[in-house]
Amino acid sequence: MEEWNQSANLALDIGGTLIKMVYFSSTDNCSADSQENRSLEESNDISDDLEICLIGKGRLHFVKFETTNINDCLDFISSNQLSTHVHVKATGGGAFKFADLFMERLGLNLDKVDEMDCLVAGANFLLKAINQEAFTYMNGHKKYLQIDHNDMYPYLLVNIGSGVSMIKVEGDEKFERVSGTSVGGGTFWGLGKLLTNCKSSSFDELLKLSQEGNNRVIDMLVGDIYGGLDYSKIGLSSTTIASSFGKAISENKELEDYRPEDVARSLLRMISNNIGQISYLNALRFGLKRIFFGGFFIRGHEFTMDTISVAVDFWSKGEAKAMFLRHEGFLGALGAYTSYQKKNSGELISHQLIEQLPNGVQCTGDDQCRGLPADPKS
Amino acid sequence: MEEWNQSANLALDIGGTLIKMVYFSSTDNCSADSQENRSLEESNDISDDLEICLIGKGRLHFVKFETTNINDCLDFISSNQLSTHVHVKATGGGAFKFADLFMERLGLNLDKVDEMDCLVAGANFLLKAINQEAFTYMNGHKKYLQIDHNDMYPYLLVNIGSGVSMIKVEGDEKFERVSGTSVGGGTFWGLGKLLTNCKSSSFDELLKLSQEGNNRVIDMLVGDIYGGLDYSKIGLSSTTIASSFGKAISENKELEDYRPEDVARSLLRMISNNIGQISYLNALRFGLKRIFFGGFFIRGHEFTMDTISVAVDFWSKGEAKAMFLRHEGFLGALGAYTSYQKKNSGELISHQLIEQLPNGVQCTGDDQCRGLPADPKS
Repeated sequence: MEEWNQSANLALDIGGTLIKMVYFSSTDNCSADSQENRSLEESNDISDDLEICLIGKGRLHFVKFETTNINDCLDFISSNQLSTHVHVKATGGGAFKFADLFMERLGLNLDKVDEMDCLVAGANFLLKAINQEAFTYMNGHKKYLQIDHNDMYPYLLVNIGSGVSMIKVEGDEKFERVSGTSVGGGTFWGLGKLLTNCKSSSFDELLKLSQEGNNRVIDMLVGDIYGGLDYSKIGLSSTTIASSFGKAISENKELEDYRPEDVARSLLRMISNNIGQISYLNALRFGLKRIFFGGFFIRGHEFTMDTISVAVDFWSKGEAKAMFLRHEGFLGALGAYTSYQKKNSGELISHQLIEQLPNGVQCTGDDQCRGLPADPKS
Repeated sequence: MEEWNQSANLALDIGGTLIKMVYFSSTDNCSADSQENRSLEESNDISDDLEICLIGKGRLHFVKFETTNINDCLDFISSNQLSTHVHVKATGGGAFKFADLFMERLGLNLDKVDEMDCLVAGANFLLKAINQEAFTYMNGHKKYLQIDHNDMYPYLLVNIGSGVSMIKVEGDEKFERVSGTSVGGGTFWGLGKLLTNCKSSSFDELLKLSQEGNNRVIDMLVGDIYGGLDYSKIGLSSTTIASSFGKAISENKELEDYRPEDVARSLLRMISNNIGQISYLNALRFGLKRIFFGGFFIRGHEFTMDTISVAVDFWSKGEAKAMFLRHEGFLGALGAYTSYQKKNSGELISHQLIEQLPNGVQCTGDDQCRGLPADPKS
């Protein structure tokens, strides 16, 4: 079997809004106490809970930056000496847009890898290699899924970045981008920023606002039109949203008269619902029962996942299922990382991976993660 | 053949945002000079160009009011003595919500007719009875369609009101509401009002704003992500919208720093595109090649029709066609009106109708509209 390429320590997915980075550190070798000895500069953008352990080799780390703050990304690479090689695998539009910048500033050559190739490679890698990667979310209940590697395909991969791509995946490198929508994470963030007038509002702040909001303040419900009644003949209850933001028409209120929480809630609901519906319609076209949602829009946010799940369930009358991925935001970056190796690299890496427990700590079957129990109950 | 019920002179479609009214006047009997002798109070909301002539009987008129100004509607009925009977056919949620109000104020009993029944009856009536009712719109070019009454079905009817209903129509009373979306006309108006901070802005003012806007100011295009390049591998040109409103994330601008024209344009584009896409996906499900768009959202607005047409064409790779209806906003009200008569009333009325010329003037084949040429070129 081919050896894991230790020199390949960095891959990038440079999107319209976010830069996602996967990097490898061999000094941080899957031991519990290594957390304390971490040599890397601390950053709020490092997603510690997502780290993946490569047995006897080291760890994969996940970091994100805003694309507008690309200098932070360059500084991070430079100060942590992540670029031991001249060539770095990179995907996303930014691999083209910022190629010169990486060369000028760091002397790095961005090896461009196709965006869709990377998304699919990343998703397949995660589904095959990481235990308890995928889960369903419904009514506040998260349920981890056992993926049967012999019965993984076909599925619909919906990657919700700034925009949304929908990809029919039929095998390791067998896939087709079948649809997409421009109403995605960039719409939530962009419109949300304008509507809440928070110049500095981050995506996560917007999500937090939405958590405390009530969409019925601005959305026009079926009951608002039907005098509190259901429109039962076509199966619409009085609480179904008839028109997103429709109540704003008739109320003598300006934007500032609405609570930002309520506005953010309506917006998130509108976008999540819309993505769920278009995803379902595309899954239906190709007879796909499984829909995996990835991309940085979701952020493990419960209301988002719940809305998407309900939308898929509602439109499919329970026939299709929305599933989510723990490493949702890093599909492209992981795919770029696996591209350092030859074909079927996902298979290769997966043999070197250890199991991942529900609490996000990774362990091997033979308990290589010293200090950590292999069985969470022990 | 059953006689036309002259006493049935009023029907209403009371939606979440607008009240649509069809009324009959026998004094205004299809002659050119009758325009001058009109006994009815003038109103900006009367759509003169949509009037339909019933041979030797009179005319059908079309009026709209905002649902919040329902008193204007009640006053209009009262001052024009439109309610010669105690029972008035009414559809839409407002037929339930405002039933008591109509009884109290005018002593009128609203006979509730199902909303979907009315939309379909209205569309079928128009397609069968009115010449040059349906048209396509693409690249600034309007093309009237000759509808073959023997080959009308099946089609997808997309009614864009406050929300959107999508109905598979297979025959006179054979139909099913197969989908819908809450992202509709109410969303454009509601969100548009909030985003442009125009307290008094009407729907038409928003449409007008959008006409003068440039969506590329706020939308994130593929080229913005790919450094000006296409993402040609998956068929996305650099000018394709990757993320609606996505540019607002990274720019240090508040809402007031954007031109309302540009904001309105992006919003209209996002919503029209989304409706076009979901419509196409539903047409595809049922193998429907023809999609008729109705509802007051469209307003004959060229950019809206163009966006919807392009979306349907793009997603269907030219397989499906978006078609529009001259009386788009009055499908439900017309359907309620035809329900005064027994089944297949559309057929009945259609025998009493005269042809409609491209300029909106109606004429019979035997030139009953005195003073108006049957041939626009003569």
